[in-house]
Amino acid sequence: MYNFPHHHIISIEQLSKNDICQIFDLSSTYLNEWQKTHTVPSTLREKTIALAFFENSTRTKCSFELAARRLGGDVITFTAATSSQQKGESILDTVHTLEAMGVDIMVLRHQSSGIVKYLNDHSSMQFLNAGDGQQNHPTQALLDAFTIEKTIGKKLKGLRICIVGDILHSRVARSNIQLFSKFGAKVSICGPKTLLPKHTPFDITRIKTIQEAVENNDVLIVLRLQKERMDIGLLPSLEEYTKYYGITSEVLSYNPSLSILHPAPINYGVEIDFDVAQYYQHSFIKNQVTNGVAIRMALLSLICHN
Amino acid sequence: MYNFPHHHIISIEQLSKNDICQIFDLSSTYLNEWQKTHTVPSTLREKTIALAFFENSTRTKCSFELAARRLGGDVITFTAATSSQQKGESILDTVHTLEAMGVDIMVLRHQSSGIVKYLNDHSSMQFLNAGDGQQNHPTQALLDAFTIEKTIGKKLKGLRICIVGDILHSRVARSNIQLFSKFGAKVSICGPKTLLPKHTPFDITRIKTIQEAVENNDVLIVLRLQKERMDIGLLPSLEEYTKYYGITSEVLSYNPSLSILHPAPINYGVEIDFDVAQYYQHSFIKNQVTNGVAIRMALLSLICHN
Amino acid sequence: MYNFPHHHIISIEQLSKNDICQIFDLSSTYLNEWQKTHTVPSTLREKTIALAFFENSTRTKCSFELAARRLGGDVITFTAATSSQQKGESILDTVHTLEAMGVDIMVLRHQSSGIVKYLNDHSSMQFLNAGDGQQNHPTQALLDAFTIEKTIGKKLKGLRICIVGDILHSRVARSNIQLFSKFGAKVSICGPKTLLPKHTPFDITRIKTIQEAVENNDVLIVLRLQKERMDIGLLPSLEEYTKYYGITSEVLSYNPSLSILHPAPINYGVEIDFDVAQYYQHSFIKNQVTNGVAIRMALLSLICHN
Repeated sequence: MYNFPHHHIISIEQLSKNDICQIFDLSSTYLNEWQKTHTVPSTLREKTIALAFFENSTRTKCSFELAARRLGGDVITFTAATSSQQKGESILDTVHTLEAMGVDIMVLRHQSSGIVKYLNDHSSMQFLNAGDGQQNHPTQALLDAFTIEKTIGKKLKGLRICIVGDILHSRVARSNIQLFSKFGAKVSICGPKTLLPKHTPFDITRIKTIQEAVENNDVLIVLRLQKERMDIGLLPSLEEYTKYYGITSEVLSYNPSLSILHPAPINYGVEIDFDVAQYYQHSFIKNQVTNGVAIRMALLSLICHN
Repeated sequence: MYNFPHHHIISIEQLSKNDICQIFDLSSTYLNEWQKTHTVPSTLREKTIALAFFENSTRTKCSFELAARRLGGDVITFTAATSSQQKGESILDTVHTLEAMGVDIMVLRHQSSGIVKYLNDHSSMQFLNAGDGQQNHPTQALLDAFTIEKTIGKKLKGLRICIVGDILHSRVARSNIQLFSKFGAKVSICGPKTLLPKHTPFDITRIKTIQEAVENNDVLIVLRLQKERMDIGLLPSLEEYTKYYGITSEVLSYNPSLSILHPAPINYGVEIDFDVAQYYQHSFIKNQVTNGVAIRMALLSLICHN
Repeated sequence: MYNFPHHHIISIEQLSKNDICQIFDLSSTYLNEWQKTHTVPSTLREKTIALAFFENSTRTKCSFELAARRLGGDVITFTAATSSQQKGESILDTVHTLEAMGVDIMVLRHQSSGIVKYLNDHSSMQFLNAGDGQQNHPTQALLDAFTIEKTIGKKLKGLRICIVGDILHSRVARSNIQLFSKFGAKVSICGPKTLLPKHTPFDITRIKTIQEAVENNDVLIVLRLQKERMDIGLLPSLEEYTKYYGITSEVLSYNPSLSILHPAPINYGVEIDFDVAQYYQHSFIKNQVTNGVAIRMALLSLICHN
């Protein structure tokens, strides 16, 4: 039924529009089946999935763990704290070891940009990139786009989407821009100069104020503000950031139909108010979490026999 | 067959005597079935249980993990070390995230008194309190009472039970007193003044010496002495504590039929001697551990369809 | 079919040649079945296996975890970081607790030599030693011997095997020497004087140079060089060690049919070159990893009904 040509998922760039439509289609199916019956076919039976998170992320790790288990997969996890990285073992060695033990798919998050591609080039393991450095976060981009198309119910083509915050250091922003552009959305970015890239593709607009961003868009993707950015002098203070770019109910009054997404975890009161995130009627942050599990189930399922 | 009205388990206070009898009845059934056949009906099939221990406790975490798995539940765990708490994510946010991912029941241990009640008031997650601050530890109280009634075989009504040690800071003591009093036991406490509460309910007796405590009771609940209490000046020394309140075979000679319980982990040689804990014929500490798994199975099973 | 008399696996010493042949036979069966169908009979169904690693080792822990799960066992894990060891709970207490909770088999790794034997003497738990201090590492020795006999295809009897490196502190070396000697292999050791034991059994030869070791042996077991050895003055520098004992393609040119094993994890560029470990045609390091899972499946399976 599905014709999915990929053996691994490293970046949005590798995926065609048709690939992405298949991912969305299967995600919808899983979402519906799970909500109705709490059971789905055991596509991953007899498959072993290793979760290797060298960067902490309870949220994404749990999402992948639940996704793999619901499909009947055998999941083993190891985090930096319990791994042998501190003994100087190279990560490629870890990959070869897991391969020799019979691990089929490795879900990997790592602080180094490009490492998943490097490992993929040097082994026959099936990789699923759960975030590498500042470069790629394909499952986040997919779940964001899926939330827009399937939950909010808006076609990406022609949709005005603005990403707000620290674009420069964000793999979420990078992967989102690639995916949204692929489908013809009108993507813009908004944030302090020090947190924006020097060069952007010609079709990405820069918006100066948060008021403009709110008024002239259909969807806002609000990024987490890494507090560490301040420590290295890129921001005068969190208060300053919140004053100019924080999403509050006052700011939203400029456009009451604007949809809000956030990749989470959220710094409440910094980039977005608690009440807005939790109770604003067009906040889809919880749907993103639910959809994230379905997207990951679809990806695991689509690559597992390739 | 069972008529259990609770959606969550926060404290002993919420449970009626009838609720507790049902918990004990189902625990007995599980205990017997498991010992005979190592299988029980998969009540938790298609249910996801998250173990969130923000305070370290291998023992209690394993007990819940085994309980949920034996009932066929899908268990995901995260501890403080591997969670995103350090990124400033609020715990309520964690709850909402797990809820959105399809987690059905959250077993929570946290250092803040009252936090489980707070979270329960702000979400529709099903909580099972595995210990919050110095306030509640309902599963420990239930397993202690179950051990007295079913393993030792003594009715709580009229039974003389003394809790020995640091009552002031102990959630075990608090929950035990509530449960024992509900069933009409004669509860007393014994320990250094600095570790006893200033005010106790009128029906709780204070006993001055360990000799009196041993002579005039049927059951002793010996609490763990947190070594940190000494650091903040509440105790002159561990040796001093052991001299006056430690349970040794000499002390037990005042009443050779006295039953001994301890919530564990034990500081051997401080609040109780190794030989007494391990080999004294009326030490029921290992039975407490075995019963704990059964009690947790019963609780998970009773709330999971509410 | 099998007649395996052991209730626990503490050391190679306890195993007869016949025991070891049975282990190898069942390991071969598992290896073949798994490679063909990815399913094996669920020998461990209704059994609970606890993985207690008080010393970090992702590799060995994963190997045991996969082994137990493939046989249908219920696996619970706890590492030093998440255990209650820091609360002063004694490890024997942990064993008694797990026993009372219904754990059937405990896979234990600990930094203290002899601790598994001690625990085994004081409880009725079934132990599987995953490495204790500098004394025993029976599963590593078994998988090394299995790799030599079944993968490389050479009989141990009369085979010339040299162990290279830090023999003095190595439980791998100790267990290997016991096993190889039992089957009549001609075992030798090679390394800096400060890293060799003062006394060795009369039938263990000491080889002075790595060139001799390569020329006069059929198999080389290259040990990991613990960098900490240098800190305590046993080695002048890593470079010095590598110069005299490092395995490079030049060194191997003295004997192009020599087989190479390494227990891993590897310090690449110290005791062995990356290219040799990964691409040398007689490097069997990845086979060791694959075989390790099969050996552990066989051991779990053989002891679980004793």
